[in-house]
Amino acid sequence: MYSFRNDYGEGAHPAILDALRKDNTAQEEGYGMDRHTENSVSMIREQINDPGAEVHLLSGGTQTNLIAISAFLRPHEACIAPATGHISTHETGAIEATGHKLLTVKTPDGKLTPELISPVLAEHHFEHMVKPAMVYISNPTELGTVYTGAELEALSAYCRKKNLLLYADGARLGAALVIEKAGLSLGGIYRLTDAFFIGGTKLGALLGEALVIRHESLRADFRYLIKQRGGLLAKGRVLGIQFETLFRDNLYFDLARHGNEMARRLAGGLREAGCSFLIDSPTNQIFPVMADPVIEKLSGRFGFYVWAKAGENRSAIRLVTSWATPPEAVEAFLEAYREIKEGVHA
Amino acid sequence: MYSFRNDYGEGAHPAILDALRKDNTAQEEGYGMDRHTENSVSMIREQINDPGAEVHLLSGGTQTNLIAISAFLRPHEACIAPATGHISTHETGAIEATGHKLLTVKTPDGKLTPELISPVLAEHHFEHMVKPAMVYISNPTELGTVYTGAELEALSAYCRKKNLLLYADGARLGAALVIEKAGLSLGGIYRLTDAFFIGGTKLGALLGEALVIRHESLRADFRYLIKQRGGLLAKGRVLGIQFETLFRDNLYFDLARHGNEMARRLAGGLREAGCSFLIDSPTNQIFPVMADPVIEKLSGRFGFYVWAKAGENRSAIRLVTSWATPPEAVEAFLEAYREIKEGVHA
Amino acid sequence: MYSFRNDYGEGAHPAILDALRKDNTAQEEGYGMDRHTENSVSMIREQINDPGAEVHLLSGGTQTNLIAISAFLRPHEACIAPATGHISTHETGAIEATGHKLLTVKTPDGKLTPELISPVLAEHHFEHMVKPAMVYISNPTELGTVYTGAELEALSAYCRKKNLLLYADGARLGAALVIEKAGLSLGGIYRLTDAFFIGGTKLGALLGEALVIRHESLRADFRYLIKQRGGLLAKGRVLGIQFETLFRDNLYFDLARHGNEMARRLAGGLREAGCSFLIDSPTNQIFPVMADPVIEKLSGRFGFYVWAKAGENRSAIRLVTSWATPPEAVEAFLEAYREIKEGVHA
Amino acid sequence: MYSFRNDYGEGAHPAILDALRKDNTAQEEGYGMDRHTENSVSMIREQINDPGAEVHLLSGGTQTNLIAISAFLRPHEACIAPATGHISTHETGAIEATGHKLLTVKTPDGKLTPELISPVLAEHHFEHMVKPAMVYISNPTELGTVYTGAELEALSAYCRKKNLLLYADGARLGAALVIEKAGLSLGGIYRLTDAFFIGGTKLGALLGEALVIRHESLRADFRYLIKQRGGLLAKGRVLGIQFETLFRDNLYFDLARHGNEMARRLAGGLREAGCSFLIDSPTNQIFPVMADPVIEKLSGRFGFYVWAKAGENRSAIRLVTSWATPPEAVEAFLEAYREIKEGVHA
Repeated sequence: MYSFRNDYGEGAHPAILDALRKDNTAQEEGYGMDRHTENSVSMIREQINDPGAEVHLLSGGTQTNLIAISAFLRPHEACIAPATGHISTHETGAIEATGHKLLTVKTPDGKLTPELISPVLAEHHFEHMVKPAMVYISNPTELGTVYTGAELEALSAYCRKKNLLLYADGARLGAALVIEKAGLSLGGIYRLTDAFFIGGTKLGALLGEALVIRHESLRADFRYLIKQRGGLLAKGRVLGIQFETLFRDNLYFDLARHGNEMARRLAGGLREAGCSFLIDSPTNQIFPVMADPVIEKLSGRFGFYVWAKAGENRSAIRLVTSWATPPEAVEAFLEAYREIKEGVHA
Repeated sequence: MYSFRNDYGEGAHPAILDALRKDNTAQEEGYGMDRHTENSVSMIREQINDPGAEVHLLSGGTQTNLIAISAFLRPHEACIAPATGHISTHETGAIEATGHKLLTVKTPDGKLTPELISPVLAEHHFEHMVKPAMVYISNPTELGTVYTGAELEALSAYCRKKNLLLYADGARLGAALVIEKAGLSLGGIYRLTDAFFIGGTKLGALLGEALVIRHESLRADFRYLIKQRGGLLAKGRVLGIQFETLFRDNLYFDLARHGNEMARRLAGGLREAGCSFLIDSPTNQIFPVMADPVIEKLSGRFGFYVWAKAGENRSAIRLVTSWATPPEAVEAFLEAYREIKEGVHA
Repeated sequence: MYSFRNDYGEGAHPAILDALRKDNTAQEEGYGMDRHTENSVSMIREQINDPGAEVHLLSGGTQTNLIAISAFLRPHEACIAPATGHISTHETGAIEATGHKLLTVKTPDGKLTPELISPVLAEHHFEHMVKPAMVYISNPTELGTVYTGAELEALSAYCRKKNLLLYADGARLGAALVIEKAGLSLGGIYRLTDAFFIGGTKLGALLGEALVIRHESLRADFRYLIKQRGGLLAKGRVLGIQFETLFRDNLYFDLARHGNEMARRLAGGLREAGCSFLIDSPTNQIFPVMADPVIEKLSGRFGFYVWAKAGENRSAIRLVTSWATPPEAVEAFLEAYREIKEGVHA
Repeated sequence: MYSFRNDYGEGAHPAILDALRKDNTAQEEGYGMDRHTENSVSMIREQINDPGAEVHLLSGGTQTNLIAISAFLRPHEACIAPATGHISTHETGAIEATGHKLLTVKTPDGKLTPELISPVLAEHHFEHMVKPAMVYISNPTELGTVYTGAELEALSAYCRKKNLLLYADGARLGAALVIEKAGLSLGGIYRLTDAFFIGGTKLGALLGEALVIRHESLRADFRYLIKQRGGLLAKGRVLGIQFETLFRDNLYFDLARHGNEMARRLAGGLREAGCSFLIDSPTNQIFPVMADPVIEKLSGRFGFYVWAKAGENRSAIRLVTSWATPPEAVEAFLEAYREIKEGVHA
């Protein structure tokens, strides 16, 4: 049974497995001082056009978020995040476990704006409350939406004016950057944020996220902080080799494009067949709304999560495609949907 | 230039790379709920002969130590550790960062005994001091020494009498368990401790440590604690496949035996050539003492760390072998030593 | 200019100052082992009719909340609190600083009910989210409202069924317990919660809160936890003497009654003069709604906080009375209000 | 039975109780914004001759230490302290509970020197170890010894050169500052450290320590950090009034002188009677060495702690005098000693 539950169900892109094997017996320095890590860091620096950028390779998104946020904030400082943000909902209080409160903001589409942040600043004005010092966004968001270049410019300008650090969770960053009309490049996100990470796990790697830090004062002693939180792999080569592979010949973006394209086909087919959507998402997560009996029948043939009630007897489901989704699976899903829908309505 | 600096310089055992490739396209559940993790957990449970044992696969030793220790202790409780213990020296205060004090004890050989622990308990007797609640050991220790079954029996009995949890860092556990005269099996260490981990990173895996929890009351909600500290890999299969491979046909122990054997040959050859040793180690780390000019010349031809001064103009160096050390490298080192020593003395 | 800003503007009830002086030169054991602390603990145990109750005297409300909550929860466990709860809003992230997430719930009146808690439990169902393990309430609430005995019975029964600890912040507890129709005694709150504290600072003490722990498993090693968080005063007598005085001849409740009575007079007078109220509060905080020009003029003659907008050109203000409020101040305020209101409308 | 166990056995100096009563009914701003706190801060600033110094009044020594140290350090930074330091031994891991490792150094007399610190810096040279960023001293030390001006100059110069913050725990600071030959004033300690506190609890206050921060970059948002750790008293006047009183007419130093003088008399009398001492202390803690049978008999007539074995059948005891010690108690102790000693030897 094919699963659209998530984008980390398969292993790694074959090129990564090949690369792991290729230099397997060469001895490398440990703890991220190996030549592959060095090389992948250079490749990322080139992409963002800053030879001095600070780049660290880490294992997973929650680990990256908690290391970065706890490194960047003083004890009384808090991080503003969308209520749907991954750190707000699905990281088991990892940020709070490092001592910092999250200030969550309800959003219509998972994205933050100056207008949404402004009341939080107004409310937190004295020492009996935490001090907002950072803004967390994810791009794409947990709802599949993306920031346009203009939106991120505005948010970034606001944060700088208000002395707020801006940090972007890019667990699926590639999926946002290949949306042409969003108009945001890797260099752009680097320029507009203080730090962000480039997610590998959900884009073809076995594991791995590349944290990029632009803000000078956030860089000091960063390897200490990684080590202290248990994030420094002895065989850093495992991460280095993967990012080398992902950024060679732009494989990373090709994989993102494939995932988005599969979602676009799914969404297109469903729309044609009469589906509406919870939200309009251009990336690899879509949220079609269906009659509950249709959903029930579909769930016997494909894996996916039911996301939210959407009226009486109707729900939105979440379908996630990835670099590994075969076009045949998309076709099969659409066919099944049409067939079931007809059966239910007959 | 061949390096004896550590046992994580090479990639993974080829069988692991093969296994990663074999099921690469199969979709698996995320976050350690995949079939490979399930299977490797069963294999470990079988080895320790307890079908109900709690086993979790994690990425690295520091991560495992900090998750386990902070999960097991209440805020005012402290962990007793040898002064040479990895958590005491080389984890950047990871345990303290979770809020717990370490009480370190000087030892002659890296091992703890009831006699060494007893004064710590006597000293910490009231609420103005932390409460010792746990004992951390590593086996093998950071000096390459191992606990005999009898030593661990005595330590375990003492800890239970004194209501102290006993936790073993097994970053190189295989290397200790294959020492026949030590008389300690995986089942034995399970029975005698409250929790311990089986290190994969230093025994042929790309990454991965298997934490095994025996004590009932330490098991509750453990996946929450892993997730909160950033230790739950989305693609848990990466760890599952590796431990499956390591425990299939006892590969894990074969790799450990190879590393030890290479060290034994190195030590034997050096002893024959007149070397003394800082400490007598039966595992894959040895500490020969050499004249400083010899060390300097050797360091131009092999990688290793100078460990400690050992008299005027003499130092101990650390040589680490591993599953991947070729016998030729051992021979080459011995030859070089003999040659250099002769030259220096001539 | 008389201030109705808070209930901690004055020093201590004279009987407390007398008591501090009375035994001033007697030598006492330090750190809460003195005879006065012992005696006041006995008095509290008698009031709640449990000679084995665990009672600790602490300095302030935030300190008490953070010590208790961090002592009671494991790292991944969270505390459910009303959005208006003091720990949620005005303790500078003190609970999060100990590593625990708060799950806040919007309430109409500052009070929690099983119905309000239930969706939080439903949402937090797996290890990617924190585990709700505790419920925090304040009585009276930050809006001056109180729990009836029946409401607390229902909440307590629900928490026990759901395996949630119930903890009550009683910074102004006296003010709730003297509301006869609420029908809640000190013994009642002890029986229905797992722990709570009796606030002294806002009821006539210089400083001091008495934490009472009923739940057996929460008591272990509690003095360690107080010491570790900096909450153990060397001269514990300072707290002991104050609670001795407050519980001698029920002074504590008399002071609470006076504060409530002053608020009742204020509210009555304002209602007669045509005021409406943001919320109906029977305790020493009231929230009358007034025209903004009236508020502005009043603010030149009395101290108080403007609490919230309440329509165009109207706001609610907060008036707080206390054990120390002179009836003359109440009369003066009412007179001023009537005079100003007339002037404004004229 | 008179006790020489500690210097916090009695209540407060009568002038403090008088002052608390004097303005008791005046309404003051809460949380340390009252006129008494303001006034006492001015008095302290005048003493140290810096009108811009940052001064905060807190409740106790452990609280002050944990708030200051956790505010000053980043997560991976550690604090160097003498093995006898109060934070190292008797604060229940309060510093570690905020996430920071202590690096303890054995000292002959409780004092740190550049020579003692230097090896710690040499050892901690890379990111697998914590980064030493701060030095903690206490003055007087826990052994009653004091730093001379020259010693503190040298230590301060070394710390500045090595980029280490220097922090002084002054729980009994007055006792050090009135030692004329030590040549250290309040202004001197301010100039030479980055922060320190002036202990009130052990010098006549009911409770209260005044934290003084010189280093500019350590001052930001400090009230947030106090509030977050539960250290902001609602009735800050309680602390303000006490420090006002202590610094009016130099009462603080007079009280310190009295305590020291009582210890000097005790020590003189004991020396005359043939006692030796564990260490030479000029302040209010002395450590005479006596035969165990003498100690046993004395302990039936006076309160004190047995401190350490000092040979076969001999021990050092600790005698603590204070602002409140009556000369008669000193005389009585000496007489008892002479009498008992004679009886034992007879």
